[in-house]
Amino acid sequence: MAKNKQLLVAGVDVGGTNIEVGLVDDQHKVHGRAKAPTPSEGPDAVLDTIAELIGSLGEDPVAVGVGIPGVVHEGEVLTVPNLGGWHEQVDLVGGLGSRLDGLPVALGNDANVGLLGEWLDGAAKGSRHVLGLWMGTGVGGGLILDGRPYTGARGAAGEIGHVVVLAGGALCSCGRRGCAEAYAGRRSMAGTAGSMVEAGRTTALFDIMEAEDKPTPTSKVWAQALDDGDELATTLFDGAIEHLGIAVGSTINLLDLDVVVVGGGLAEKLGQDLADRIGEAARPWMLRPSPELRIVVSALGDDAGVVGAASLGRAALLVD
Amino acid sequence: MAKNKQLLVAGVDVGGTNIEVGLVDDQHKVHGRAKAPTPSEGPDAVLDTIAELIGSLGEDPVAVGVGIPGVVHEGEVLTVPNLGGWHEQVDLVGGLGSRLDGLPVALGNDANVGLLGEWLDGAAKGSRHVLGLWMGTGVGGGLILDGRPYTGARGAAGEIGHVVVLAGGALCSCGRRGCAEAYAGRRSMAGTAGSMVEAGRTTALFDIMEAEDKPTPTSKVWAQALDDGDELATTLFDGAIEHLGIAVGSTINLLDLDVVVVGGGLAEKLGQDLADRIGEAARPWMLRPSPELRIVVSALGDDAGVVGAASLGRAALLVD
Repeated sequence: MAKNKQLLVAGVDVGGTNIEVGLVDDQHKVHGRAKAPTPSEGPDAVLDTIAELIGSLGEDPVAVGVGIPGVVHEGEVLTVPNLGGWHEQVDLVGGLGSRLDGLPVALGNDANVGLLGEWLDGAAKGSRHVLGLWMGTGVGGGLILDGRPYTGARGAAGEIGHVVVLAGGALCSCGRRGCAEAYAGRRSMAGTAGSMVEAGRTTALFDIMEAEDKPTPTSKVWAQALDDGDELATTLFDGAIEHLGIAVGSTINLLDLDVVVVGGGLAEKLGQDLADRIGEAARPWMLRPSPELRIVVSALGDDAGVVGAASLGRAALLVD
Repeated sequence: MAKNKQLLVAGVDVGGTNIEVGLVDDQHKVHGRAKAPTPSEGPDAVLDTIAELIGSLGEDPVAVGVGIPGVVHEGEVLTVPNLGGWHEQVDLVGGLGSRLDGLPVALGNDANVGLLGEWLDGAAKGSRHVLGLWMGTGVGGGLILDGRPYTGARGAAGEIGHVVVLAGGALCSCGRRGCAEAYAGRRSMAGTAGSMVEAGRTTALFDIMEAEDKPTPTSKVWAQALDDGDELATTLFDGAIEHLGIAVGSTINLLDLDVVVVGGGLAEKLGQDLADRIGEAARPWMLRPSPELRIVVSALGDDAGVVGAASLGRAALLVD
């Protein structure tokens, strides 16, 4: 074994809540993990935390790959809309490299990187035309087209959450009306639930949230409320599925995919049943779906981002 | 010149109304054209007409490429929904080859082939991420992604006309409610105009149609009515633009394109003004468009399909 020692790459998944790091081998297996809350003080604090987490893994990686919730183009982070203090373009590759003795560092968008993990070693392994649909605070997406990751002209592709499904409908956090995310993002759903409670409706959603000591209704909170048969939570969630189905159906009509992978916190809690429900909601909108089309839940769960990010790091090593 | 004689390829554009054929050189220039109404008696009559048109060109091509309004996958025509008598899978390559002394024949979907023409030598020349949007009887589309034609898992990609822009809205000819085509396809717009006339509204649309001796309101008829300031035609056309804008905006969010080419009969009549109006309608729905995004009218017009089809024929020659 010592002779054939694996070269491990650190995969880093920077989320709005936590940063997760794993050491990943060239067969996409994760050998060690570490996790910390995402600092809200801006880029320097985030880079420090990533470097500390990598240092805590006990073994030195040969490269680092990072998935970040922002627009990444040619290795540059263009915008990071959902993390505190990221107001300008940040040289994340240089800043992290200098904290890690010049290790090669590669960058990707978190949704794209998560799909990369699922495509390399998860639910979309071996597929050529894939949509990754991530249900979280918002609704994110990534694409594999013709057997290659697709990020578009400037790295901003995959925004299935901002496919407009009902023009003029519900207000989205992006300021437009009728995006899929306005119905199916956890932040939007919580906002709607709050308004309905103010208007006199009842739900256990916020009681569960408080009992769980969470600042907002998390996936776990939603899963609990749905499991308890909470009427308002069920109505909102049915609406989320219905509107996601329209966005997925339109995307199939546009891209003739063979796999849709459903991931994110809610997918981890609800499993294949969530993917099946989205599939049922999407089918009526599809014109000519491939007979082999599959709509499946993420196989790697939380590890998808770490595995995908590590693969970017490994690729950086090859070209370095 | 005789020493360097060009090898010409026949490009065939099979439309719902006409079949157009051109002899195209390797610089995508069209050297001769022929045209005939599309027979409605089914595949054999269509193949006979194509062979006759090619024979009438005066010079023998070395290969043939055909764009057809149907789903084409790996050289097979899977479905041809809009031509009379095409009820089953047809061996168009074999049937045409045998009529043309075994010339190499290649096949593509008409919208994809039209975009191929614009990408090789028209409005999208040199671009890597392109949507072709064809406004005709229906609304068709084609995609160039990452610098390559994209047709999806089974050749059915590009259906921007069946991106759902207002779920539950206007009835589309595909049977769904709220597709872009239900608002912007000429067939749908004529249906809506007819219903509104029955309900007491007035329009010159059908008078112009009769004066032009057309069975349905063609692009020319619409252009005339719009030019005359016909109120109903203007209202319907404004709605078409508005809903196409939503579909284009969603597609940009999903694919981060750098060019949208607007073509088809209406684009030929209305020019860049049509593309500008669609761009204006799309911008408010875009999340993070590339700063270099252009929305432009077709540069090749009617020749786009012929040039694109010929390029497929030329490629078939190379692999034959």
